[in-house]
Amino acid sequence: MVHVAVTGGAGFLGARLARELLAAGTLAVAGGAPRPLSRLTLIDRAAIPDDLAADGRVTSVRGDLPGLLAEASGPDSPDGTGARDGPDGTGARGGPLGGADVIFHLAAAVSAECEADFDLGMHANLRATQTLLAACRAQGASPVVVYPSSLAVFGGSPEHPLPAVVDDRTAPNPQTSYGTQKLIGEHLLADYTRKGFLRGRAIRLMTVCVRPGRPNAAASGFLSGIIREPLAGQRATCPVPPDTEVALASPGKAVTALLRAATCSGQAWGDHTAVTMPALTVTVAEMAAALERVAGPRAAALIDWSPDPAIAAIVTGWPGRVRADRATRLGLSPDQDFESVIRMHAPQFG
Amino acid sequence: MVHVAVTGGAGFLGARLARELLAAGTLAVAGGAPRPLSRLTLIDRAAIPDDLAADGRVTSVRGDLPGLLAEASGPDSPDGTGARDGPDGTGARGGPLGGADVIFHLAAAVSAECEADFDLGMHANLRATQTLLAACRAQGASPVVVYPSSLAVFGGSPEHPLPAVVDDRTAPNPQTSYGTQKLIGEHLLADYTRKGFLRGRAIRLMTVCVRPGRPNAAASGFLSGIIREPLAGQRATCPVPPDTEVALASPGKAVTALLRAATCSGQAWGDHTAVTMPALTVTVAEMAAALERVAGPRAAALIDWSPDPAIAAIVTGWPGRVRADRATRLGLSPDQDFESVIRMHAPQFG
Repeated sequence: MVHVAVTGGAGFLGARLARELLAAGTLAVAGGAPRPLSRLTLIDRAAIPDDLAADGRVTSVRGDLPGLLAEASGPDSPDGTGARDGPDGTGARGGPLGGADVIFHLAAAVSAECEADFDLGMHANLRATQTLLAACRAQGASPVVVYPSSLAVFGGSPEHPLPAVVDDRTAPNPQTSYGTQKLIGEHLLADYTRKGFLRGRAIRLMTVCVRPGRPNAAASGFLSGIIREPLAGQRATCPVPPDTEVALASPGKAVTALLRAATCSGQAWGDHTAVTMPALTVTVAEMAAALERVAGPRAAALIDWSPDPAIAAIVTGWPGRVRADRATRLGLSPDQDFESVIRMHAPQFG
Repeated sequence: MVHVAVTGGAGFLGARLARELLAAGTLAVAGGAPRPLSRLTLIDRAAIPDDLAADGRVTSVRGDLPGLLAEASGPDSPDGTGARDGPDGTGARGGPLGGADVIFHLAAAVSAECEADFDLGMHANLRATQTLLAACRAQGASPVVVYPSSLAVFGGSPEHPLPAVVDDRTAPNPQTSYGTQKLIGEHLLADYTRKGFLRGRAIRLMTVCVRPGRPNAAASGFLSGIIREPLAGQRATCPVPPDTEVALASPGKAVTALLRAATCSGQAWGDHTAVTMPALTVTVAEMAAALERVAGPRAAALIDWSPDPAIAAIVTGWPGRVRADRATRLGLSPDQDFESVIRMHAPQFG
């Protein structure tokens, strides 16, 4: 029997991951044999979708992560006042993680909102991750922790120009608070793993596209908006120059990468450093051209090309080209082309 | 008038730095004109040496850093309960930093004690640094913050073997909790600097040798012990193989690097990433040979060569060779040879 917990479980990726886990009904944890999924705990400030709430295996926990987990964590939690009551961590079993075997830590504040509100990012990304790791350690059972990191850990600065192609060995050099917080999480996860407190798997996701639903505050949000809105007959703004290269992955590829991180053996995963997932590289001009081929020129004409220096500075600072050798060895692959990515989002154009 | 604060101000490097600052009497902050040193605040859990306490410019603040600074920091402090009472940060002026223009953050737990006691390192290194940065931000005046990082941010792992020579662009890959905590501090400092909250200068120090006084809990402590103890007629143990290469700097070179970080202009410093200081590379066998040349064969015979796998694993995981281009451009240089390093420690053999 496997108990899985997902932070950010009401979000777009979290809910999609939850549906895939429930549909599969089993999970092969860290290279072991598949075991039945007995319990799925979804932790989020927001309510989870009705279809998930209706599944008898699902438990919903609502609240702000650091606050929820503070009492279940130990002296390594950021405020140092965790209530772990003994060296065996038995006092923590009652926390919202409930002794989960696998934790997907998807809860996060996104890039542009962390740039606009520094304290929000420090709380929702750094402090939440620190508290989560402390709570996982306090469980005393070395759970598998899948941590989605980001391409935003990379960046260029005068002493460290960004290479044309980033690979698994490129030195991270974040140029945003979001990227900094994600990178710090990678290093904490690696050290907790090295110490045997948990089995961490950090995987750097690409910009997920096409993200359904309403726009979010990610600097990369427009990369979904310029496809999603025109397909729904609405205008959308592209804030970066047409020749901007971006590294994308469809929602399906992102969920596959998260699941692979949970299921592959420690030996196959390699060491404790983060794995960069494969990307489809396109320019935004190519994205618009693909939209035109799929949905016609009237759809593509709904894109307003209106540069926004703040957004462009963030997005053009991320690498557009990725060489993902480790992820390829793990069996992960990029999307084939951007037209198929659009058709996955809008099957009526298939 | 310049107000300087030094955390860890009662320690060996902190006290030596304090003496150099007081003797100079002026400090040219971040490329500005030299200004008189009006106040020197030394923050430490331990009492400061008598000669420093006797100087009228010195204020001693005793206590544990996170606790001391918690009330002077803001919502970005790790426990999120900072008492900053307004957006201008005026409420923080009364904290122990007292509005210092330059802060040297030397307080830290050392490598072997952080490996032995994970919670100690998380508290004394990570939480203390987070609280200090939050308190500096809360001052609202963008102070210069000199942060000694360490060669321990580098390391080798299966997916990321350590190169023969590390340079300013080598990707850090810490293999100890101490190295992880130091690296996280580098990244936090860079982001606080990018946001304009402070002017951070992270400089990766080498193993300081010969460190006077009593042995400490650093894994590298024996590198001073095998010189210091025999010079005092006492036995000392070398826990690593004789051909182990180590990257060293004398106390004088370390203090010079810290001062240079405080005084050079932002433009000369470069970007927000850490600068690796120059090193003298020697094997421990060469160190013993130099000891014999300086103090005779009876001194060198006091070294017991007795491998300790735990210490050897940490120390041989650090790079022995450094190419320090950025530091060289800043005017920093390595010690010339190890005999002169011994004679600096023991001038009676000069």
